[in-house]
Amino acid sequence: MKIGMVGLGRMGGNMVRRMRRAGLEVVGYSREAEVNRKLADETGMIPADSLKDVVAKLDAPRVVWLMLPAGEATDAVAEQMKQMLQPGDVLVDGGNSHYKDSQLRAIEMKSAGLSFVDVGTSGGVWGLANGYSLMVGGEKEAVAHVQPFLEALAPAPDQGWLHCGPNGAGHFTKMVHNGIEYGMMQAYAEGFALMKGKTEFDMDLAAIAEVWRNGSVVRSWLLDLTADFLSKDQQLDAIEPFVTDSGEGRWTVIESVEQGMPAPVMATALMARFASRGEGDFASRMLAMMRNGFGGHAVKQRG
Amino acid sequence: MKIGMVGLGRMGGNMVRRMRRAGLEVVGYSREAEVNRKLADETGMIPADSLKDVVAKLDAPRVVWLMLPAGEATDAVAEQMKQMLQPGDVLVDGGNSHYKDSQLRAIEMKSAGLSFVDVGTSGGVWGLANGYSLMVGGEKEAVAHVQPFLEALAPAPDQGWLHCGPNGAGHFTKMVHNGIEYGMMQAYAEGFALMKGKTEFDMDLAAIAEVWRNGSVVRSWLLDLTADFLSKDQQLDAIEPFVTDSGEGRWTVIESVEQGMPAPVMATALMARFASRGEGDFASRMLAMMRNGFGGHAVKQRG
Amino acid sequence: MKIGMVGLGRMGGNMVRRMRRAGLEVVGYSREAEVNRKLADETGMIPADSLKDVVAKLDAPRVVWLMLPAGEATDAVAEQMKQMLQPGDVLVDGGNSHYKDSQLRAIEMKSAGLSFVDVGTSGGVWGLANGYSLMVGGEKEAVAHVQPFLEALAPAPDQGWLHCGPNGAGHFTKMVHNGIEYGMMQAYAEGFALMKGKTEFDMDLAAIAEVWRNGSVVRSWLLDLTADFLSKDQQLDAIEPFVTDSGEGRWTVIESVEQGMPAPVMATALMARFASRGEGDFASRMLAMMRNGFGGHAVKQRG
Amino acid sequence: MKIGMVGLGRMGGNMVRRMRRAGLEVVGYSREAEVNRKLADETGMIPADSLKDVVAKLDAPRVVWLMLPAGEATDAVAEQMKQMLQPGDVLVDGGNSHYKDSQLRAIEMKSAGLSFVDVGTSGGVWGLANGYSLMVGGEKEAVAHVQPFLEALAPAPDQGWLHCGPNGAGHFTKMVHNGIEYGMMQAYAEGFALMKGKTEFDMDLAAIAEVWRNGSVVRSWLLDLTADFLSKDQQLDAIEPFVTDSGEGRWTVIESVEQGMPAPVMATALMARFASRGEGDFASRMLAMMRNGFGGHAVKQRG
Repeated sequence: MKIGMVGLGRMGGNMVRRMRRAGLEVVGYSREAEVNRKLADETGMIPADSLKDVVAKLDAPRVVWLMLPAGEATDAVAEQMKQMLQPGDVLVDGGNSHYKDSQLRAIEMKSAGLSFVDVGTSGGVWGLANGYSLMVGGEKEAVAHVQPFLEALAPAPDQGWLHCGPNGAGHFTKMVHNGIEYGMMQAYAEGFALMKGKTEFDMDLAAIAEVWRNGSVVRSWLLDLTADFLSKDQQLDAIEPFVTDSGEGRWTVIESVEQGMPAPVMATALMARFASRGEGDFASRMLAMMRNGFGGHAVKQRG
Repeated sequence: MKIGMVGLGRMGGNMVRRMRRAGLEVVGYSREAEVNRKLADETGMIPADSLKDVVAKLDAPRVVWLMLPAGEATDAVAEQMKQMLQPGDVLVDGGNSHYKDSQLRAIEMKSAGLSFVDVGTSGGVWGLANGYSLMVGGEKEAVAHVQPFLEALAPAPDQGWLHCGPNGAGHFTKMVHNGIEYGMMQAYAEGFALMKGKTEFDMDLAAIAEVWRNGSVVRSWLLDLTADFLSKDQQLDAIEPFVTDSGEGRWTVIESVEQGMPAPVMATALMARFASRGEGDFASRMLAMMRNGFGGHAVKQRG
Repeated sequence: MKIGMVGLGRMGGNMVRRMRRAGLEVVGYSREAEVNRKLADETGMIPADSLKDVVAKLDAPRVVWLMLPAGEATDAVAEQMKQMLQPGDVLVDGGNSHYKDSQLRAIEMKSAGLSFVDVGTSGGVWGLANGYSLMVGGEKEAVAHVQPFLEALAPAPDQGWLHCGPNGAGHFTKMVHNGIEYGMMQAYAEGFALMKGKTEFDMDLAAIAEVWRNGSVVRSWLLDLTADFLSKDQQLDAIEPFVTDSGEGRWTVIESVEQGMPAPVMATALMARFASRGEGDFASRMLAMMRNGFGGHAVKQRG
Repeated sequence: MKIGMVGLGRMGGNMVRRMRRAGLEVVGYSREAEVNRKLADETGMIPADSLKDVVAKLDAPRVVWLMLPAGEATDAVAEQMKQMLQPGDVLVDGGNSHYKDSQLRAIEMKSAGLSFVDVGTSGGVWGLANGYSLMVGGEKEAVAHVQPFLEALAPAPDQGWLHCGPNGAGHFTKMVHNGIEYGMMQAYAEGFALMKGKTEFDMDLAAIAEVWRNGSVVRSWLLDLTADFLSKDQQLDAIEPFVTDSGEGRWTVIESVEQGMPAPVMATALMARFASRGEGDFASRMLAMMRNGFGGHAVKQRG
């Protein structure tokens, strides 16, 4: 079984490693030759020096897995692959693409006789050790071609990956997964903040995270990670209160709006991230001025 | 008709002015003799030099109106008044007390043969010119004693004041009024922020506020005030994005929680104010660290 | 000054009436001949019996105002107008189109030598009597052609209409207006619900709405309307707790997400409408089952 | 080591079982003699036939653990225990009391020479098998007396229980735990609802919950439970969309308001529960009437 892996960054590189450990052959390609060479040395991956070379080094029916930033990068390489691959080949997008883009991409690939599989991938930097959670969309036969690789990437061959539905269903499921993630994270963050704010109790947040890991209703992997970083530093004074977001949380809220299906916690968690980046400041200034306007309340002038 | 007014700050002072303009006699008292004297000179208010003197200068049945900060200040003076006033007299709390405190205070005053009236007062610095909106709680006869003063303070004798219900109902109504105010303010603030954020349209926020004042669904007095301050400065660069809150918005959310009656917009608006003051920063740091934990996402270090 | 008005529904019909009262000539067209004829009889509007006839009855440079449901209806007629109008003519979309659609439409019309003006219209059924609030996007010269009609529709020639910016800016401003409207409405609704929920005070909601109209910080046109319907019925027992939404509130939340600019109150107000339609029921069932799962809490079975 | 356990309901009964399995002696008491007798037969618990008998059957320094509904039930029994216990004895409240009540109770017990320990208990019906997560507040020596029992109740002697801080800190930590729980539950519920709402993908929610359990970022014990009930029924048609709440979620939101520390996700999750019970219906009726008022939008009349 041989697969082509395009994109050898944090995610793609570790996925190559995990597949290699499972004894699968991987033809890998990164735009940075150095990355390519090093990973080949480390893992026995077959390095390719171009997209064309990836295709050339695989046997039909080929499976090429893209692990690239969603949007332009994925679009550009998918377009090239459409030209290079041959009928019966399978293109996989394992990145964080929007599910509607994946639905369109599937149609486009089909018009060239190619199969397309969209794979939402969760597991982050821990996927290498623990295996990835893989949410898969596409037609049955196409998924069957990809199955050996999914089995190697998942925590175990028969768990941690799922054929969720037709094209788009994989990225859709991953999108919703991230929406849930945002809500959970915010819930934990609020809780620990309330405990820190209760200064009279002078609580040890690391110890509390640790105790909750055992037997509590809120135990989770996110809590495991939280206990870990709190054990090293629970003041977090050196950390900017600045939280970025990667797109999927936004898309989930938009999905909620488009479906007319309430997702108030997801929306609220997302808005809290926006606010953490100072994006609510103008609104706050407006509020301060309104209070001044009707009540004569003093407004803080900036230093 | 004579009334005693205790507390001659921004609110109390203007209320004296408005009652004097209506030809009512007012015995006024402030702890600051200077304030007392000046207001007497300006308005013909009868100055008192102590709480005792206020009582002495009124005829039974007396009406004494407290216009003091809620909490300790009001509690202390109300306690003294309870000692000094005589059965049949009426004590009015026109400040922002919690309605449950007012319910208790009414019982306490009754035990001394006194009547109590709680008055929620809206109108801010504009009340002097436009009249105040007055929400009144208490027993009928007590309210009847206060009525001439309510009629003078309101925009017109027959509008702008209401006997809302038994003791507590006045301050309760004012509390809910402020909860609504928080939600409305936040709605406007978010809207103007979205327009400012749409830089490609380079919109004139002052002009938009002005146009909405005429014929739009969102026209309101708060919008009038907004149009006014935006006409002077719509960048607000010199204003800190720091919004305080006066208690009643908090109480309304707690009321919602205690009733089990959803008030998600009020709660959200309140939380946005907390966040404007940096109180969400620790939670944001937690989020940044969690993202780092599972995804290896970079964390911004503080300079 | 002559204008063509296409779409004579609740909004379009009243706009014809208002323009006629101002002495402007209007060529009107509705797909329903009866509507067309009646309005002509009532107002002296010149009836057209087809889109072609609208164009024929106007003098160059023509101004044709579409007042149609956003989406397919507007798209279809705009497309036909593009074929029929001549260079220098102006097409106006006064409906609730998405501002991005209007931006695209402007480009498309320009390619045919036509000008396009997008007008967001607020004022509802009261616009006929009070005038409309009109938010206008487009190029200066095009707006100048439409100005006489804007002046007639607005509450007064010099207030209530605004050239907000380039194409799209009119519908964008209207969209944000509606987002604010959702937040304000929800704030009022929550407040009145809390007062109704406080049964011990047995408050007269109609009287409270009325008193707030005078001098309070929350006075507004929406409150005027609220006072009016509460004065007729404050139990609302016959009303389904079912709230629809027209698209613009959704778009505003999506705009917030796309800008990364927090609008938590708008999002919350929108989600509350979704929930009012039972769309949160499956999530609630999930919660009930989770509680059952960890705590053995009883689950209500449906009758 | 011998302990008195008062309250042998779902929680108390299982705690007796778990302590008995660990070889600890338990004197148990329930108001229902039958419950008492059965549990004694099953576990070898020493049954007491009154509170007095509980005290009599223990050796000084006694440890008596109350596992009763918070509020009146706990208050009443604690008061009696205060009379019956002797200086040096320790009273434990393992129920869901408000932390401020526990702070006051500790002072009161101290005045009688007794120690008080507040224990927040998580783990629900699964605690018997898995052990409980125990959050403990009180003075060091008092906690030391209770430690053998905490070690038996926890998943392991050295994990799953924590001395969080002074009196109140135990119940405070449990309160925040539940606030987090509300947020997490709502996040999952929203996510699964969005997937169910995406009917075109016809997804198998049970399979998705299962796949997420392995390797995904959102894996947790709540997800384990969710996967379990979805595997039996993923339509949930027979379940009422009615979610109750037990007090601690409310207290956490009130704590957030009192601290001025934003907890928007917790507040939103709580409000969603209120709404699930129809408590938002009056507000929705208000919205429907406002829309009717300004836009002439039809209002649904109740059948």
